[in-house]
Amino acid sequence: MSDPEKGPPTIGVFDSGFGGLTVLQSLLPRLPRARFAFIGDTARLPYGSKSRRTIARYAVESAQFLVREQGAESLVIACNTASALALDAIQDAVPVPVLGVIEPGATAARASSKTGDVLVIATDATVQSHAYATACKDQGLRALEKACPLLVPLVEEGWINHPVTAEVIRIYLDELATDANAAGLNPDTLVLGCTHYPLLRPLIEQAVPNGLKVIDSAEAAAEAAARLFNGRAQPRGVDEAGSTEIHCFATDSVEKFERLGSRFLGRPVGKVELVDLGG
Amino acid sequence: MSDPEKGPPTIGVFDSGFGGLTVLQSLLPRLPRARFAFIGDTARLPYGSKSRRTIARYAVESAQFLVREQGAESLVIACNTASALALDAIQDAVPVPVLGVIEPGATAARASSKTGDVLVIATDATVQSHAYATACKDQGLRALEKACPLLVPLVEEGWINHPVTAEVIRIYLDELATDANAAGLNPDTLVLGCTHYPLLRPLIEQAVPNGLKVIDSAEAAAEAAARLFNGRAQPRGVDEAGSTEIHCFATDSVEKFERLGSRFLGRPVGKVELVDLGG
Repeated sequence: MSDPEKGPPTIGVFDSGFGGLTVLQSLLPRLPRARFAFIGDTARLPYGSKSRRTIARYAVESAQFLVREQGAESLVIACNTASALALDAIQDAVPVPVLGVIEPGATAARASSKTGDVLVIATDATVQSHAYATACKDQGLRALEKACPLLVPLVEEGWINHPVTAEVIRIYLDELATDANAAGLNPDTLVLGCTHYPLLRPLIEQAVPNGLKVIDSAEAAAEAAARLFNGRAQPRGVDEAGSTEIHCFATDSVEKFERLGSRFLGRPVGKVELVDLGG
Repeated sequence: MSDPEKGPPTIGVFDSGFGGLTVLQSLLPRLPRARFAFIGDTARLPYGSKSRRTIARYAVESAQFLVREQGAESLVIACNTASALALDAIQDAVPVPVLGVIEPGATAARASSKTGDVLVIATDATVQSHAYATACKDQGLRALEKACPLLVPLVEEGWINHPVTAEVIRIYLDELATDANAAGLNPDTLVLGCTHYPLLRPLIEQAVPNGLKVIDSAEAAAEAAARLFNGRAQPRGVDEAGSTEIHCFATDSVEKFERLGSRFLGRPVGKVELVDLGG
């Protein structure tokens, strides 16, 4: 895929905001020789509460920016909502391979689950699309999905280890357990179907019953991307990312992106460029 | 302002979402003979976390829609963030009188405060603009502002009377009281500087110390609009709103608007029309 004379291949990574930086963080050690162009469509976030039509229009504009302006040779849609509602539209709009986070998440759930029943927590729009339920069904799994709209604002408020956040997680997971019981499911796996949720993983793991395994779609998507774009996944721990090129773009609030982004990427995001997608 | 031959005057009311319906609810009994056109720019909400430039561009598009397409002869900017960051831009862009919510809120705070020190809670963008502090200073008041970014998502989750919401309010108000104390202020008035917050008024009033009066910018703006557009405020309780025409428009999620809107308006919002502002 990459021409040795023209430098490392560019992988475009797209999210509605900063959350997708958790996917980029997982990608870095797996694709150490790639150049990454990340765009957060922060002027129009959050996608989670918007309609399919609007989300598809927004996501296609960001994807086209990455391919046309940044020369991306492949795309990772590091946003569950856009993966759920706009993957087809993006694939139709750009001439490069496109990978979402839903299918890798479902595949990882398949590998984890012994009972065949899984739980998924995500944004409103992702849940309403039933993209996880459909992808899990394709893997022979039964999935019960729940929207947890307060978790993204709690992460963005920085209440990562806060008692209020622990209580909100407990309430959501209790409701989900009750619904699973009522539906006759015996779940053993919980999929984090939003790229903000990995930051809450410690609190979520404290709140889930023993024996329930937590799967991170961001991690799963990065594994899948490494297989797809690299030929083979880099062994974990081989992080040469210090030499990896990362260029971040945002459609609004460059300062906020720079300030919050490092929390998601686990390292400074560097200088963020403002992009006007016209909407 | 109104020509008797062409029917009642149209008042345009604008918000980034549904919150401004609390202002519309306060306007109805005060301007019973008006026709109201309300637009919620739901495709691009929330404005509270976006930059001045982006907010101004979005707000002007909605204002122009109300004036050009709906024939609005006056506008109420029923959104604290847009009032704080885009009032001048809107006034420059449309040839009708424009009223925001900030100045009426500050005027009401002036009427309430005996100590001359007031507290303001609002979104991130409203607070960062210091629009309330400036408007309060013009009234001879000292104001301390605090961003409370979790309150809007809690209202939209429907957790209006929820213990988690009560705890979040307690945390925010405790932090604000500590800051006020450190700044040597002696506040006796709290301004609700976001149109979502009136729905939390019961919980907020339980959380504030005795003697602190809660002022609602939505209510204050409706009073000011009635004086400005009607010549005189209608006496309270004279609600002829059953005969008032209300037309609601949204840039996204018409179903969600219809479902959530009634919570803010205190009555059904009726059929909501989808509008494409092109962004």
